[in-house]
Amino acid sequence: MKFSRRVKSALVRECMAEVLGTFVLVFFGEATAAQARLSKNTESVLFSANFAFPVGVIAGMYLTMGISGAHLNPAVTLSFCVLGRWPWRKLLPYSLSQILGAYLAAGVVFLVYYEAIMDYSGGVLSISGPNETATIFFTSPSEYLTLGRSVLDQVVGTAMLMLCILPLGEKRNTPAPNDLIPVVVGVIVFGLSISVGGNCMGAINPARDFGPRLLTLTVGYGIETFTCYNYWFWVPLVVPNVGGVLGTFIYLLFIQWQLPDPEPPEDSSNLFTISDKLKQEATTWDNGDKLKAERL
Amino acid sequence: MKFSRRVKSALVRECMAEVLGTFVLVFFGEATAAQARLSKNTESVLFSANFAFPVGVIAGMYLTMGISGAHLNPAVTLSFCVLGRWPWRKLLPYSLSQILGAYLAAGVVFLVYYEAIMDYSGGVLSISGPNETATIFFTSPSEYLTLGRSVLDQVVGTAMLMLCILPLGEKRNTPAPNDLIPVVVGVIVFGLSISVGGNCMGAINPARDFGPRLLTLTVGYGIETFTCYNYWFWVPLVVPNVGGVLGTFIYLLFIQWQLPDPEPPEDSSNLFTISDKLKQEATTWDNGDKLKAERL
Amino acid sequence: MKFSRRVKSALVRECMAEVLGTFVLVFFGEATAAQARLSKNTESVLFSANFAFPVGVIAGMYLTMGISGAHLNPAVTLSFCVLGRWPWRKLLPYSLSQILGAYLAAGVVFLVYYEAIMDYSGGVLSISGPNETATIFFTSPSEYLTLGRSVLDQVVGTAMLMLCILPLGEKRNTPAPNDLIPVVVGVIVFGLSISVGGNCMGAINPARDFGPRLLTLTVGYGIETFTCYNYWFWVPLVVPNVGGVLGTFIYLLFIQWQLPDPEPPEDSSNLFTISDKLKQEATTWDNGDKLKAERL
Amino acid sequence: MKFSRRVKSALVRECMAEVLGTFVLVFFGEATAAQARLSKNTESVLFSANFAFPVGVIAGMYLTMGISGAHLNPAVTLSFCVLGRWPWRKLLPYSLSQILGAYLAAGVVFLVYYEAIMDYSGGVLSISGPNETATIFFTSPSEYLTLGRSVLDQVVGTAMLMLCILPLGEKRNTPAPNDLIPVVVGVIVFGLSISVGGNCMGAINPARDFGPRLLTLTVGYGIETFTCYNYWFWVPLVVPNVGGVLGTFIYLLFIQWQLPDPEPPEDSSNLFTISDKLKQEATTWDNGDKLKAERL
Repeated sequence: MKFSRRVKSALVRECMAEVLGTFVLVFFGEATAAQARLSKNTESVLFSANFAFPVGVIAGMYLTMGISGAHLNPAVTLSFCVLGRWPWRKLLPYSLSQILGAYLAAGVVFLVYYEAIMDYSGGVLSISGPNETATIFFTSPSEYLTLGRSVLDQVVGTAMLMLCILPLGEKRNTPAPNDLIPVVVGVIVFGLSISVGGNCMGAINPARDFGPRLLTLTVGYGIETFTCYNYWFWVPLVVPNVGGVLGTFIYLLFIQWQLPDPEPPEDSSNLFTISDKLKQEATTWDNGDKLKAERL
Repeated sequence: MKFSRRVKSALVRECMAEVLGTFVLVFFGEATAAQARLSKNTESVLFSANFAFPVGVIAGMYLTMGISGAHLNPAVTLSFCVLGRWPWRKLLPYSLSQILGAYLAAGVVFLVYYEAIMDYSGGVLSISGPNETATIFFTSPSEYLTLGRSVLDQVVGTAMLMLCILPLGEKRNTPAPNDLIPVVVGVIVFGLSISVGGNCMGAINPARDFGPRLLTLTVGYGIETFTCYNYWFWVPLVVPNVGGVLGTFIYLLFIQWQLPDPEPPEDSSNLFTISDKLKQEATTWDNGDKLKAERL
Repeated sequence: MKFSRRVKSALVRECMAEVLGTFVLVFFGEATAAQARLSKNTESVLFSANFAFPVGVIAGMYLTMGISGAHLNPAVTLSFCVLGRWPWRKLLPYSLSQILGAYLAAGVVFLVYYEAIMDYSGGVLSISGPNETATIFFTSPSEYLTLGRSVLDQVVGTAMLMLCILPLGEKRNTPAPNDLIPVVVGVIVFGLSISVGGNCMGAINPARDFGPRLLTLTVGYGIETFTCYNYWFWVPLVVPNVGGVLGTFIYLLFIQWQLPDPEPPEDSSNLFTISDKLKQEATTWDNGDKLKAERL
Repeated sequence: MKFSRRVKSALVRECMAEVLGTFVLVFFGEATAAQARLSKNTESVLFSANFAFPVGVIAGMYLTMGISGAHLNPAVTLSFCVLGRWPWRKLLPYSLSQILGAYLAAGVVFLVYYEAIMDYSGGVLSISGPNETATIFFTSPSEYLTLGRSVLDQVVGTAMLMLCILPLGEKRNTPAPNDLIPVVVGVIVFGLSISVGGNCMGAINPARDFGPRLLTLTVGYGIETFTCYNYWFWVPLVVPNVGGVLGTFIYLLFIQWQLPDPEPPEDSSNLFTISDKLKQEATTWDNGDKLKAERL
């Protein structure tokens, strides 16, 4: 009976997983931001927000790694396409699914904390001022920040993300345990949260910013969600993709191209393979120079 | 000699383990709340409370996973019953054991911190006001919160719990290491602690709220522990069960039904099996569509 | 050449390891307390102290687990003796080694932070008042605390310690990975640090309190280090031993005696055995009903 | 095609990896310091800085462990040379690469946070006073600290580092899982961050201090970066090397020389070996008395 419930199209199954995984990632991230912001114990509680996306990454990856590869970030999908590990034709469906998941997560956070937001803000959904609640959902630049610097910020942040997660599945290097990769990725995202969030809140994920920004437009924050800071919304939407590819090339240049020859193809001890049927997805985190995951 | 000490009834052994495991879970959670609340360094110490239930989950699961499956939460037991992984006839004994363990834990916390509570509260066991100490033990809603919103809050929180822990033992996905599942569950509970606790303190576990609430009634906080906020106590007692089942169905729809066929039954590399004798309990975290654990 | 440097007596080798391991445990714990107390950013930094003993446990256990079993706590050694897993004749040498290690650690912390202590305290080594620095080194009770309650506090705290660490190596239950037991013990010690430290700073280890207390006597804090609070020093010295044994019996009653029969003796997949020569020590964390580790 | 991109000299490949790995280590550490210092929520956010170098260690080690052994610290390389596990002729190239990586990381942090630094400091790059930003990049002693005490501080801090990381790969002891060594080293670095940073910010790594100090000289902080505190810069540059060797000898005396004979050479279950080609690098963390890694 179970099998009749399986969606026939692999791409649809993968996109469903990316929707749900990104939902989990963004739900943890933004619900924590809401809880921290809207509480009275601001100082110490604000620190908790740094742990929110990491836990979301861990939970979202365990949920979806065996189905969709757990990208949960259009910049990650793009980098995998550039590397030849993921088919280009899946880039757009994946990205849209990730944005949809983030949109839905922001919607549930808005519903759950609606009364808290109203209580905190005095009943006004505002994107600026002392009672603003928009940055629970999307990122915004510090006042001192120029456009060029915010571009640099997002390039560097996303480059660091790709540089640090790409080696985790490389068998010729010292990979993290395959079944603990979500935890190590979570640790790295935590590190990025405390290090590259100072200028403009460290989106480093187009879906994490754009989906919730659409949600705030939907629920009544106004078109200023897109026009504010001189249409700044494009920076976290576009620039992480550039940063991700840059980080990927630095990784190739300094690490992957310097590793010894891969093992001969008959090696059967692929740490990433959970079952044969899932080999294609499961190897997303693994190294490879030719295209894998050509299903559908 | 050891074996003569073994209780003959498997259900009694399991219930003993659930009592002790839930005791450990709630002891860490509420002793930390007591230490944080009753200390003078409020700001930073309050943050520590977010780590308390996670550590309790980790310790309680390692203690009991091999005997009772380490549910430690009636909403988890109910979800496993709905999934067909746990017999329905064990639902009530498990739930009562979990409530008893939580009751005992609150009692020990009350005994250990009795003088601190008296010192802090000026000698009055109060459930409201600046010197209240009741929320060390049970949850209560924020002032702005309507009943409907608190129901939504507990549905979403417990749904996220089940959604995030169900994949951890699924071999066809990318499961967490079997012997580190308690740690990963702890990470997820930490994430929930910082994200879904903003409205009404995030019980997401009927036993964790109801057992200690009974304890406060026992030791003299008065019947207001049940009547306060218009008999609000039923929300954390009843609603998490609904949320757990909802999260379970979202998991089935998006993930489990989309996974490939299970391996043929002769697979002997069950990651969850610690010893053959414990296979039934140990497989609680494992996936399965027919009833397991039919012992007693 | 290396082997000539090996000390011939196994007990001396083990005691050397316990000295060094407890040194590491207490150094992390007390240097962090010094750094936090003596800094200006009190609020948030004080929280860091909760992580200090856990990291010390992790580092100290990896250092010594293969030689001495990494007890690092007389209450743990006593409990293992009661369980029959460790020979009684080693109880006193182990306990003295642990106290010596703690004494030396406190001495190095005192040396490293001597000028900071002088700067903070105005040049007076004092055990009370706003500029006291003695609680960097040893524990003291809150003002409201009666003697009976502090005894209860230490019984409960140490019972929780033993209750939570004993299952970690039990193969018939769901054990933690053998090579990550130090990390899981660290998590549990962290949980105890935030939950049972509210009354009298949660020593739960006679060596951790008594060794540094001796050091403060040595370096000039005066005999008040022992006479203060009506000779309270005996509580963290004696009571944890009682609590450890109590926790051990609760563990036996609820968990170990309820587990299925052990595997037949020919099982060779002892997760704890690193090499045959170390089997006796390495099995300290493992379950067993007859005496192991009868060497010397 | 990939192989043509491989640099022929093993030493150059290794140095490239050390540059990149130390870049990652120092980037996380100093970007977090910048974010914490330059933000408004000082109290709780400052605590995050303790996690920065640990995450940098974890990310940097996974990136480079299979190529260069992931030393990332001249004091570590020197200790491995003294132990005979690393060739002396690589000490200088490694150390220079590590300093270069740290220099580049400080440069990128300066670029990313340039406007934040200008905004915070009022446009003056200053090494002292309330608006100083130099300690984002390099360490400085507390006012009360004498030179002798700061030397002792760095000896003890770096000795603890080596003492705690050397056992992690020793198969005759209880080693950490090979593929989680970066995480355990991160935990230890976190412990050092909260315990030995109180006097002079706990460099315990010559490259981490000297590289960024050079960067501040480059970008305009002035020669005072080297002359301040009576030319104190030599302490974190020189003394950690002494401390590392001291910690190594304490480890040998108390632990390694007391372990049983090594397994016969035909053991093939080297936990550290990822692939045969990498055996030499991969065994860096492993124990051995004769020189390994004689390539180039």
